[in-house]
Amino acid sequence: RIDGARLWDSLMAMASIGATPAGGCNRQALTDEDKQGRDLFVRWCREIGCEIRVDRMGNIFARRAGTEAGIAPVITGSHLDTQPTGGKFDGVYGVLAGLEVLRTLEDKGIKTRAPLELVVWTNEEGARFSPAMIGSGVWAGEFTLEYAHSRADKSGKTIGEELARIGYLGELAPEPGPVTAAFEAHIEQGPILEKQNETIGVVTGVQGIRWYDVTFRGKPCHAGPTPMADRRDPVQALAILCERLYSEVKAYSDDARMTCGDLRAEPGSRNTVPEKVVLALDLRHPKPDGLEHLHRTLYRLAEQVEEAAGVTIDVREEWHSPPVQFDESCVAAVSAAVERLGYSHRKMVSGAGHDSVYVSRVAPVSMIFVPCAGGLSHNEAEFAEPAHLEAGCNVLMHAMLDRAGI
Amino acid sequence: RIDGARLWDSLMAMASIGATPAGGCNRQALTDEDKQGRDLFVRWCREIGCEIRVDRMGNIFARRAGTEAGIAPVITGSHLDTQPTGGKFDGVYGVLAGLEVLRTLEDKGIKTRAPLELVVWTNEEGARFSPAMIGSGVWAGEFTLEYAHSRADKSGKTIGEELARIGYLGELAPEPGPVTAAFEAHIEQGPILEKQNETIGVVTGVQGIRWYDVTFRGKPCHAGPTPMADRRDPVQALAILCERLYSEVKAYSDDARMTCGDLRAEPGSRNTVPEKVVLALDLRHPKPDGLEHLHRTLYRLAEQVEEAAGVTIDVREEWHSPPVQFDESCVAAVSAAVERLGYSHRKMVSGAGHDSVYVSRVAPVSMIFVPCAGGLSHNEAEFAEPAHLEAGCNVLMHAMLDRAGI
Ligand SMILES: NC(=O)NCCC(=O)O
Ligand SMILES: NC(=O)NCCC(=O)O
Repeated sequence: RIDGARLWDSLMAMASIGATPAGGCNRQALTDEDKQGRDLFVRWCREIGCEIRVDRMGNIFARRAGTEAGIAPVITGSHLDTQPTGGKFDGVYGVLAGLEVLRTLEDKGIKTRAPLELVVWTNEEGARFSPAMIGSGVWAGEFTLEYAHSRADKSGKTIGEELARIGYLGELAPEPGPVTAAFEAHIEQGPILEKQNETIGVVTGVQGIRWYDVTFRGKPCHAGPTPMADRRDPVQALAILCERLYSEVKAYSDDARMTCGDLRAEPGSRNTVPEKVVLALDLRHPKPDGLEHLHRTLYRLAEQVEEAAGVTIDVREEWHSPPVQFDESCVAAVSAAVERLGYSHRKMVSGAGHDSVYVSRVAPVSMIFVPCAGGLSHNEAEFAEPAHLEAGCNVLMHAMLDRAGI
Repeated sequence: RIDGARLWDSLMAMASIGATPAGGCNRQALTDEDKQGRDLFVRWCREIGCEIRVDRMGNIFARRAGTEAGIAPVITGSHLDTQPTGGKFDGVYGVLAGLEVLRTLEDKGIKTRAPLELVVWTNEEGARFSPAMIGSGVWAGEFTLEYAHSRADKSGKTIGEELARIGYLGELAPEPGPVTAAFEAHIEQGPILEKQNETIGVVTGVQGIRWYDVTFRGKPCHAGPTPMADRRDPVQALAILCERLYSEVKAYSDDARMTCGDLRAEPGSRNTVPEKVVLALDLRHPKPDGLEHLHRTLYRLAEQVEEAAGVTIDVREEWHSPPVQFDESCVAAVSAAVERLGYSHRKMVSGAGHDSVYVSRVAPVSMIFVPCAGGLSHNEAEFAEPAHLEAGCNVLMHAMLDRAGI
């Protein structure tokens, strides 16, 4: 069994870096706070004798040697970056649960046949730099390094520049070697486990995600003398499109999701009809055909509104992460660990994207969910019970030992 | 008659300060560009012997002495600040038409009985600092100096700080002395004169304006795992409210205006339902009861949507500039000048706010409009015909001479 109190203390120590007045965390990818969090992580790993390597995407690999040569590692990990108004657990839990596993093995003098590797993936949130999960994505071959390095935040700073600036532009090529198995612990970020009063979610896959920049281009004109009938108003087009899309998405299925996370008007002057409005849109569905339906609905409505409002609507797909099914043997390893430990549990599909999505392209993977209060995440009030975090970490350790061998 | 070519050259020289690649101007209030524009204006005025004074709001008064002691000045002027993507004529024309009048009188050796005063008012646009017309508003007693100095732009810089920074925090108290009459030349910024093929608008008043910050507060949550039914989504509330308000405003009367000039989402992350969205809203109507109706409609719809969407909607009125009727004798002076000069003309109400609105609280005022291409303003493509600008300037000179006496 792991040490739940030590895990909790580590979580709280990490949460002090980028702590917000409202009790959350703002430790966005590749900021000074992210650097501080990474430095603390590296120090902790070195204290238990791990070897640290950093790749050209800033992904950090902490390795605990195995007893047998030539066996591929069992890996675990998640991310340390947060949303701008994020919580203390999203991502961080998966990293520090992995650390707690390594610390426990160290304490108990347990050696594994396969090496264990604990990974911090860069920019999982996709909040500062789009898309999400880009660190694991480059490693797994989904994105090129050039593409990733050139991604810019709202102020124009790129991932490449910021990696160099904070000293995490490593030398290692971001590419996978052989992997025995991979596991990731995470808070659920949704309401199911809490509602069902279950401790562990055995994650069988992840729903699909598509991201869009929807740009509405009208004609700037004066707020006063310009008759309404003469206007080409991008905000009106935005309002109509969103209104219809929300209705259709909700009517389509309870599983469908639509989020308008960001809006920007240009030039953004109260007495000028904007020249353009840009909407950052997120659509999700657990099934490929469901996601495809939402995608088509968006394009259909955009075309309809474009004609009606005299505004051009450019829908540019920014990212597509199709639904993923995790490896059956890894799912079975998690299930077996939960059964052995005696926690209440259920199988479930993740509503959030995770680094495991990309890791699963090159390795057998499963995930372990624990409940979070009110299902709330991407919110400063995000909270998880210490007992649940401890349970998830125990499951992680047992699943890893199962695959790594003692 | 004034010198139309010299007027045009002055307009083009001023337009080179803050010129945008698309052919417009970005010379927002109290920026470095605004300072350059002011400096050029002051130099031009000194070249023709005017005395310059600057008040604590940064309003610049250039005075040409009269021949008789004890007569209050006839004033004219407008603003040099522009929208972020503004044109070459809005405001600037009124300032440089006034300058052209003074230059013409100087050339011809014409002395007036009353002094003539040419004014540049600070921050008329309301684009960088809200509200609009705040320089003339303080001078006329509508706003206190403390209120005005504390107004901040989006980056938090205040009018007081920026006035000091660019060297235009004058010593003069911003308050009116006696004024014989005031006139302001301006482009129409709407389509009426062009459509009717008329050269001059004799402006009898200005429609009412109300500005609001509408804040939609929801609950931030994760874009993926959070069921749509559990969300309190401020963007959905925004979409519904805007959609309904556009419909009701358009249905109410052809005279009603609604503009959503700026939008901001916080925290503004694509995979987080925003905590809040702020809409900068502008409502207008020429009649007080019409404007009151729009105001009530906004509050009624906000209450309805608030209940339906589970989002709090805070409607904060930022500014109210009621409809204004100009002075009959000044309107008559403009009409008489137009008739004498033989230009085609019509009486009209301004759709845009102008410094004359506040000047009219403490002095008899009228305005002179000239057509602009396609009625387009607050747009980099804003254009006015040199012949129309010349005509408006001639009318301005004749109206001023009528009131100042030769
Ligand atoms: N776990 C998590 O919040 N990931 C961010 C990517 C997503 O939007 O699902
Ligand atoms: N003339 C002009 O564009 N004034 C700005 C104030 C308004 O919005 O009407």
